[in-house]
Amino acid sequence: MKKITPTLPKGTRDFGPGEMKKREYLFKIFKDTFSLYGFNALETPSMENINVLNGKYGEEGDKLIFRILDSGDFIKDIDNIESKDSNNLRKEISKKGLRYDLTVPFARYVSMNRDKITLPFKRYQIQNVWRADRPQKGRFREFYQCDVDYIGTKSIVCEAEIIDLVYSIFEKLKIQDFSVKLNNRKVLFGIVETLSLQDNFDKICIIIDKIDKIGKDKFVEELKYIDLSKSQIEKLNSVLFFDGSNDDKIKFLKDFLFKSSTGLEGINEIENLTKLSKEFIFDINLARGLSYYTSSIFEVILDEKNIGSLCGGGRYDDLTEIFGYKDISGIGISFGIERIYEIMKERNLFPDSISKKDTVLVCSMSEKYLDDSLRISSILRNNNISTDLYPDNPKLKKQLQYANKNDIPYVIIIGEDEVTSKLFTLKDMETGSQEKLGIDEIISKVSS
Amino acid sequence: MKKITPTLPKGTRDFGPGEMKKREYLFKIFKDTFSLYGFNALETPSMENINVLNGKYGEEGDKLIFRILDSGDFIKDIDNIESKDSNNLRKEISKKGLRYDLTVPFARYVSMNRDKITLPFKRYQIQNVWRADRPQKGRFREFYQCDVDYIGTKSIVCEAEIIDLVYSIFEKLKIQDFSVKLNNRKVLFGIVETLSLQDNFDKICIIIDKIDKIGKDKFVEELKYIDLSKSQIEKLNSVLFFDGSNDDKIKFLKDFLFKSSTGLEGINEIENLTKLSKEFIFDINLARGLSYYTSSIFEVILDEKNIGSLCGGGRYDDLTEIFGYKDISGIGISFGIERIYEIMKERNLFPDSISKKDTVLVCSMSEKYLDDSLRISSILRNNNISTDLYPDNPKLKKQLQYANKNDIPYVIIIGEDEVTSKLFTLKDMETGSQEKLGIDEIISKVSS
Repeated sequence: MKKITPTLPKGTRDFGPGEMKKREYLFKIFKDTFSLYGFNALETPSMENINVLNGKYGEEGDKLIFRILDSGDFIKDIDNIESKDSNNLRKEISKKGLRYDLTVPFARYVSMNRDKITLPFKRYQIQNVWRADRPQKGRFREFYQCDVDYIGTKSIVCEAEIIDLVYSIFEKLKIQDFSVKLNNRKVLFGIVETLSLQDNFDKICIIIDKIDKIGKDKFVEELKYIDLSKSQIEKLNSVLFFDGSNDDKIKFLKDFLFKSSTGLEGINEIENLTKLSKEFIFDINLARGLSYYTSSIFEVILDEKNIGSLCGGGRYDDLTEIFGYKDISGIGISFGIERIYEIMKERNLFPDSISKKDTVLVCSMSEKYLDDSLRISSILRNNNISTDLYPDNPKLKKQLQYANKNDIPYVIIIGEDEVTSKLFTLKDMETGSQEKLGIDEIISKVSS
Repeated sequence: MKKITPTLPKGTRDFGPGEMKKREYLFKIFKDTFSLYGFNALETPSMENINVLNGKYGEEGDKLIFRILDSGDFIKDIDNIESKDSNNLRKEISKKGLRYDLTVPFARYVSMNRDKITLPFKRYQIQNVWRADRPQKGRFREFYQCDVDYIGTKSIVCEAEIIDLVYSIFEKLKIQDFSVKLNNRKVLFGIVETLSLQDNFDKICIIIDKIDKIGKDKFVEELKYIDLSKSQIEKLNSVLFFDGSNDDKIKFLKDFLFKSSTGLEGINEIENLTKLSKEFIFDINLARGLSYYTSSIFEVILDEKNIGSLCGGGRYDDLTEIFGYKDISGIGISFGIERIYEIMKERNLFPDSISKKDTVLVCSMSEKYLDDSLRISSILRNNNISTDLYPDNPKLKKQLQYANKNDIPYVIIIGEDEVTSKLFTLKDMETGSQEKLGIDEIISKVSS
C-alpha cells in the first residue's frame, strides 16, 4: 500500500486529551445548568434532506452548506450532463446536506413530532455544525453550537428565565465582565413606522445590525443608499442613539411611539421585563440579523473589548410554519461556545485539576510484579481512583518521566520489597517525597 | 416560501429527550470507566481527506464512505465530463469523506502527532460514524462507535487490563450473562502453517470468521472452494473445534504446534494471559475479519442468544505504518454501544430515576405571581434542584398534566395564600398528597 502523508481537511481540528478535558469541563457546565432550568437534551442527525436546509439561511448561506454526494451510480439518470453548470448538477447529485445550524433541525423536529411532545417544550442542543466558509483564525468549517429554546409559549417569563440562565452560566464559568443587551423588534418596527419608513423595515434592520461593525458614519451612508432623506436619517439617528437609563428610554419611546400600536406593545414588553428580570441594557439600536425574530432580541457581550457577541437570540412567531406547523411562538438563545472556550483559555479560567490525566501511576520494577501491579490497580479503581498502569518495565526513571509528562500526581512503585512486605512505595511527584504505605493508607491518602 | 413536509434522511434518527437521558447515562458509564483506567479522550473531525480513508476498509468499505461534494464551481476544471462514469467523476468532485470508523482517524492522529504524544498512549473515542449502507432494523447510516486503544506497547498487561475493563463496564451496566472469547492470530497461523496451508492464511481466516453466521457445514464447503483437500479440511476441523478447558486447549496446541515457532509464540501469550487475566474462553475458531490484527484477538458475546458480538478487538503491529510511522504496536477494543443500548432498553436496565425530566414544576395561579414563581425557581436552582417553571397561567389542571406527562415528581403551587403566608403548596404527584411548607422545608424534602 502506498504511504500517505497524514493531513487534516482545511478548517477542521483534532481535540487531543488536554483540549478534550477543557471542552468537556465547559460543555458539562452548560448541560448541567440547562438541566437545572428544565431544558431537555435533543440531538438531531448530522445530515438533513436538502429541502429542509435550502432557503433557510439566505442565498449566501445556501452556498456554505456542505453537501453529501449521492451514493452509488449517481450520474446514471442525468441527461446531457455536459450542458449543466455546477449549480444545476449539484441539485441532481447531492440530496442531503450537513447540519448548518441547530435552529432549522429543531424546527423540523418539533414539526415532525408535534403529536408526541408536550407544549411548552424546552430543549437544549449542543452539537457540531459545518460551514464551507473560508477558514481563518477562530473560524472553522466544523464547530460546535449550543442552543436553548422554548417553543409553544408567548410568556415574557421565558425572557426573564433566559437572562437568569445567562447570569447563572457566566457565574459558573467565572466570567464577570459581561452585559446583556436587549431590544424588541416591535419597538424597531414602531420607530420605523412612526417615521413612515415601514416599507423599508427589513432593509433598515439589516443596516442597524451592522452598526457595531461599520460605525455610525458608515451607517448613515448605507441609509442613504436605500433612499432615506437627510431629515429621516437624522430623526432615526436621534431615536436609535437616544442616551439614558432603561427607564429614560422607555419613557422617551412611550411618547415617541404613541401612534404605533406595535411599537407600544414592544415597549410594554420591555417595561414588564424590567420588573421580572435580572439586569439588562435596553439597547435601541440592537437589531440582530436573522429575519425570523419578531419580538424580544438580545445579545450578551464582553465589556472589555469588541470581540463580537458571546450569545445571541430572540423570540420568533413562526419558526415551524415552513414545515406546516403554524402559530407556534418560541424564544431561543445560542451560546457561542467556541468563542467562550477561547476566552476561558486566554484568561486561564479552567481549573488546574482538570488537566491531570490520572491520580495514580502504578510502576512495576520487573515483569515478575505485573501480576501484583494489576491487582493493586484493580483495588484502586474499585475505590474510584483513576489509575494508570505502566504496561512495560523500563527503568523507573522512564516510568516517572511518563508520570511527569502526563501530570500524574502520585506514583506507586512495586518491587520485591513491596510485594514481600505488602507496603508499597507512594511517591508524591510534586514534592518528590516518598513513603511506604499499606494499600488502605494509600487509598485514603490519594483520595483526599 | 413553499411549505415543506419535514422528513429525516433514510437511516438517520433524532434522539428526543427520553432517549437522550438513556444515551447520556450509558455514555457516561463508558467515559467514567475509561478515565478510571487511564484512557484519554480524543475527538477527530467528522471529515477526513479521502486519501486517509480510501483503501482502509476494503473495496466494499470504500463504496460505503459518504463523500462530501466539493464546494463552489466543482465541475469547472473537469474535461470531457460526459465521458466519465460515476466512479471516475466521484474522485474529481469529492475530495473529503465522512468518518467511517474511529480506528483510521486514530492512526492518522497518532502519526500526525508523534512528536507531541508520550508513548505508551491510551485513548478512548466515542463519536458518530457514517456508512452508506442499506438501512435495516438496528442498522443505521449514522451511529456511534466507542473505542479504546493502547498504542506503543507490546505488553500482555494491556490484554489483561482490557478484559478487566470489559468486566468493570458490564458490571456497571448490570449485564451479567456475557463471555469474553479470546484467540491469537499467531496460533491460527501456526495451525495453518503446520498443515502447510500458510499461503491461504488470509482466505482461511476470512472463512473461519464466518463460522458463527454460516454454520459448520457451510464452513467446510467454503474451504473446498479454496482447494483444500478432504484430509486437510478434516485435520483443520479437528484442531479448530478441539473441545476442552483453556488448559486442555493450551496443552493440546503446544504439542500440535511444536514445529511452528509463530504458533508456539501465540500459545505462550495465551498461557501467560491465563495467569494475569480475569476469566476468558480460549476459542480456537475465533478469527476476526479485520486483516490488521496480528496477535491477540477477542470478542465479547451474550450467552443468552446469538445476536452477534457486543465488543471486539485485537492487537495490531502496524496500524500507523501506512501514515509513515513504523513499528508501533498497539491493541484496541470497540464496544458496540448502539447494540448495548438496545439490549439495555429491552431488559429495562436504565434506572427509573433518569427518565424524570426535573424534580420540581413551579405553577403560578395567576400572572400576578410570576414574579414570585421566578424567585422561588431561582432559589431552588441555587440549591441544585432541577426546576421547571410553567411560563403561562392556564388552569392548574393543565399545568399538573404537564407535570405528569414530563414525569415531574413534585409541583409547587403559587397563589395568593402562598404569597401572603410564605408557605407554598407542595404536591407529591405520585401520591397526590399536598402540604404547605416554607421554602427551606421544600428544599430539604425534594432534595432527599
